[in-house]
Amino acid sequence: MTAGERIPLWDIFEVAFAGPSDGNPFVDVTLSATFAFGNREVRVTGFYDGGGTYRLRFMPDTQGNWTYVTTSNVSVLDGHKGALTCDPPASGSHGPVRVRNTFHFGYADGTPYFPFGTTCYAWTHQPETLQTQTIDTLKNAPFNKVRMGVFPKHYIYNENEPLHSLFERGPDQVEDFTKPNVVAFQHFERQVKALMDLGIEADIILFHPYDRWHYCDLSHEQDIAYVSYLVARLSAYRNVWWSLANEFDFLLDVKPVEHWDRLFHTIEAHDPNRHLMSIHNGEVTVMFDHRKPWVSHVCVQNWDVKRTDQWRREWGKPLVNDELEYEGDIPRPWGNISARELVHRFWITLMRGGYAGHGETYLHPEDILWWAKGGVLHGESAARIGFLRQLVEDSVTEGLTPLSEDGRWEFSRVSGARDGTVRFLYFGEHQPREWAVGLPLEDGDYEIDLIDTWEMTVTRLDKAALPASPALRQRGGAMAGGEPEAAFGVKLPGKPYQAVRIRPVRAT
Amino acid sequence: MTAGERIPLWDIFEVAFAGPSDGNPFVDVTLSATFAFGNREVRVTGFYDGGGTYRLRFMPDTQGNWTYVTTSNVSVLDGHKGALTCDPPASGSHGPVRVRNTFHFGYADGTPYFPFGTTCYAWTHQPETLQTQTIDTLKNAPFNKVRMGVFPKHYIYNENEPLHSLFERGPDQVEDFTKPNVVAFQHFERQVKALMDLGIEADIILFHPYDRWHYCDLSHEQDIAYVSYLVARLSAYRNVWWSLANEFDFLLDVKPVEHWDRLFHTIEAHDPNRHLMSIHNGEVTVMFDHRKPWVSHVCVQNWDVKRTDQWRREWGKPLVNDELEYEGDIPRPWGNISARELVHRFWITLMRGGYAGHGETYLHPEDILWWAKGGVLHGESAARIGFLRQLVEDSVTEGLTPLSEDGRWEFSRVSGARDGTVRFLYFGEHQPREWAVGLPLEDGDYEIDLIDTWEMTVTRLDKAALPASPALRQRGGAMAGGEPEAAFGVKLPGKPYQAVRIRPVRAT
Repeated sequence: MTAGERIPLWDIFEVAFAGPSDGNPFVDVTLSATFAFGNREVRVTGFYDGGGTYRLRFMPDTQGNWTYVTTSNVSVLDGHKGALTCDPPASGSHGPVRVRNTFHFGYADGTPYFPFGTTCYAWTHQPETLQTQTIDTLKNAPFNKVRMGVFPKHYIYNENEPLHSLFERGPDQVEDFTKPNVVAFQHFERQVKALMDLGIEADIILFHPYDRWHYCDLSHEQDIAYVSYLVARLSAYRNVWWSLANEFDFLLDVKPVEHWDRLFHTIEAHDPNRHLMSIHNGEVTVMFDHRKPWVSHVCVQNWDVKRTDQWRREWGKPLVNDELEYEGDIPRPWGNISARELVHRFWITLMRGGYAGHGETYLHPEDILWWAKGGVLHGESAARIGFLRQLVEDSVTEGLTPLSEDGRWEFSRVSGARDGTVRFLYFGEHQPREWAVGLPLEDGDYEIDLIDTWEMTVTRLDKAALPASPALRQRGGAMAGGEPEAAFGVKLPGKPYQAVRIRPVRAT
Repeated sequence: MTAGERIPLWDIFEVAFAGPSDGNPFVDVTLSATFAFGNREVRVTGFYDGGGTYRLRFMPDTQGNWTYVTTSNVSVLDGHKGALTCDPPASGSHGPVRVRNTFHFGYADGTPYFPFGTTCYAWTHQPETLQTQTIDTLKNAPFNKVRMGVFPKHYIYNENEPLHSLFERGPDQVEDFTKPNVVAFQHFERQVKALMDLGIEADIILFHPYDRWHYCDLSHEQDIAYVSYLVARLSAYRNVWWSLANEFDFLLDVKPVEHWDRLFHTIEAHDPNRHLMSIHNGEVTVMFDHRKPWVSHVCVQNWDVKRTDQWRREWGKPLVNDELEYEGDIPRPWGNISARELVHRFWITLMRGGYAGHGETYLHPEDILWWAKGGVLHGESAARIGFLRQLVEDSVTEGLTPLSEDGRWEFSRVSGARDGTVRFLYFGEHQPREWAVGLPLEDGDYEIDLIDTWEMTVTRLDKAALPASPALRQRGGAMAGGEPEAAFGVKLPGKPYQAVRIRPVRAT
């Protein structure tokens, strides 16, 4: 057997076969392959791509020589053998994102990944020129994840028809939910790849309730067939995340919790790469049970972001709050907070050990709102989120742990986090002129930076005297002293939206 | 029997008697009186005021002729009889504040009372000139309640000795906790009266943990004697509220919950006027059980003000959040939020059916911080709180009911309240350009006012078209319509900290 095609680690090996096009190939024909690396075997599901063409895609996760052999219920597709050699990764490729250090994420190559995502639910269903504009915007935006639906969106400001129907239309123009429209899926996949080429994760939403095309009304078996097909097509893209739903609880009448679990298991069956999987809530009081082992991380919609550290502790997994309300001015409370407030909520979320997602919903004369359609960004939060991302990427390695875990009550009110010896304090609506709690308990040589989160400035601060500290009440004649607050204090400007970063100076 | 002295309703009838001054009159001598109005009898406790003088004070709550007779364990004080005639109330006197409409307050004469309080914990313990300045400030400030401690305060910025020790000093200069220092109590009482003359309620804090004078170490019996004495002196002042503690939970090691209950009962025994009573928490997670029938209203320290409507519903009583953090810049998170944030929290609290309290803690070169010592106000929130108070007093009669009780989820995010046909919406960090939810469902003639809560402006708005409303997903081929949001919409400026008031135009 030859060494075969050479594929960089975490890139896509694809092989196509000609097969039957009569009947319903999506239903009638099964195709899979077993990829082998020595004694290790990985099962990969193939898919029908229209016009009698069947494809198998495989993302190698280990360098070296792989072989494969196909299995099909159709003899012409069965028993094909081949080989590939997996080389070192391409430049800029870090592999799929995994859970790392319990509450955080990292790429497969060990590089930390800090999600700073945005939301463009239906951008792939817009006219091509608008999609091109969206990609151009993302090239220069600070986001490394996009939440995007497979299905188009029916909602206010979303009245237009999608570029492609998701399923083939019969002679009566009615969509046949047993036949994916390969043109639609090829297009969607092309945009997933466009994001991959920009280093952006595609947080792919499989179901959502905003529908006028009856996509909510697929039978349970049709749901499973659709998910199987999507996963077979896309799981070889390293930047894929599976989000089973946007607002799953608004679909509970047609998809009960047991069905969602079955859909999770369907993905597991067809995704040899075990991409991240989660599911998103509508009502802030209705959460999926993210403790289930097949849920890799917690996806939250909730505005009450000072509870982030509590949620994280309760679920014991990485937490991404993808809807802490969007910057905008529409008449829906989830889509009309000020840029300042969204940046504030990002900082609070990060400084309590979670991750946050951006969205933008400004009224637009042609109803082109970023949150659903993409286009260009109009708001003021994105730049500040980029500033925060840069600070985190510059300073954090393993992930931020909330200072509230150190037991000081002050961090129920202000926010702070640490990673090893690096600490951040975020004061938000608090505006002290001097501060100590959360600063290091050991004196030493520190770089202390004052961060203006809105003005995006970083200013070196000197150590200052400890502020006056409240004595406890006198008991039995002796004054009880409080616990030490810190080894030194800092002087601050006495205005809101300030943060402080403290890093020990490394010996040169 | 003659008609006796003429006393306006809710003013103070006082009578003094000469009695023994040897031994410990505070402990040795009992004095009380029964005031009678026809067959009704009211028991009033007397008190020793030093120099052989004993006093009885009585606040008549009913116009007409009253008689009294004294009872004492000392014959010279026993069996004194007298009479008084209670006339209509003096101008500007509305009587003591009571609970009204379950969640609200009103004066005894039926006038609504909306608490807009401030905090000056130890102002009566400061030098006289500073106290005079405090009174002058309160004359022109928007506050109608002051939280103030009987005991002095030991804490950062509070290192000075009080004007008077609370108890008589023995020859060894040690205070004798069985002998109240009448000079101190006379002074405190003069300041309670000064507030009464300004129409300001005195929310009197009986105990607190910030102590270096061993006042926290009184025995339980000494606590009860002190409370009995204080109540006998002060309960005839119509502007008195009893706050058993500031931060009771920080005193639980010396005063368990059973003792707090006993102190509530001690007040009930000596206060014939049944002034409002509550108790204040330190940790936001430790609440006294305000459901107990002797607690008239809920006193809260909590910054998480969007939960106000939830707390109110849980406790079923009027809710006053006296510490939603103070405007200031000190290095304690409870005392360093921006003025804008405090005003925001006031609006949220009011628009969720509760009441809020002000405090101010700016660093001061001579440690004169309003929250503890009074003086002058330096901040920017007081004027905006006054503006809010004026709006409420102009528009509200029975008290505000949160719009979240109408079941619309939007009011978990934005805030709104109604009183009869008057409605307020408060958008806060939300900045919609158009809005409908919470506006009236019936069309008609309305006065619609846009309120800029920070700029303190009120601008008339016209009715506008209903904004586009999200359709629900299509089920079974038919588009399900949402519930109607309102009969009309409003256009808004698309910036934060705006509110709207809607009132039907009355037929002329």
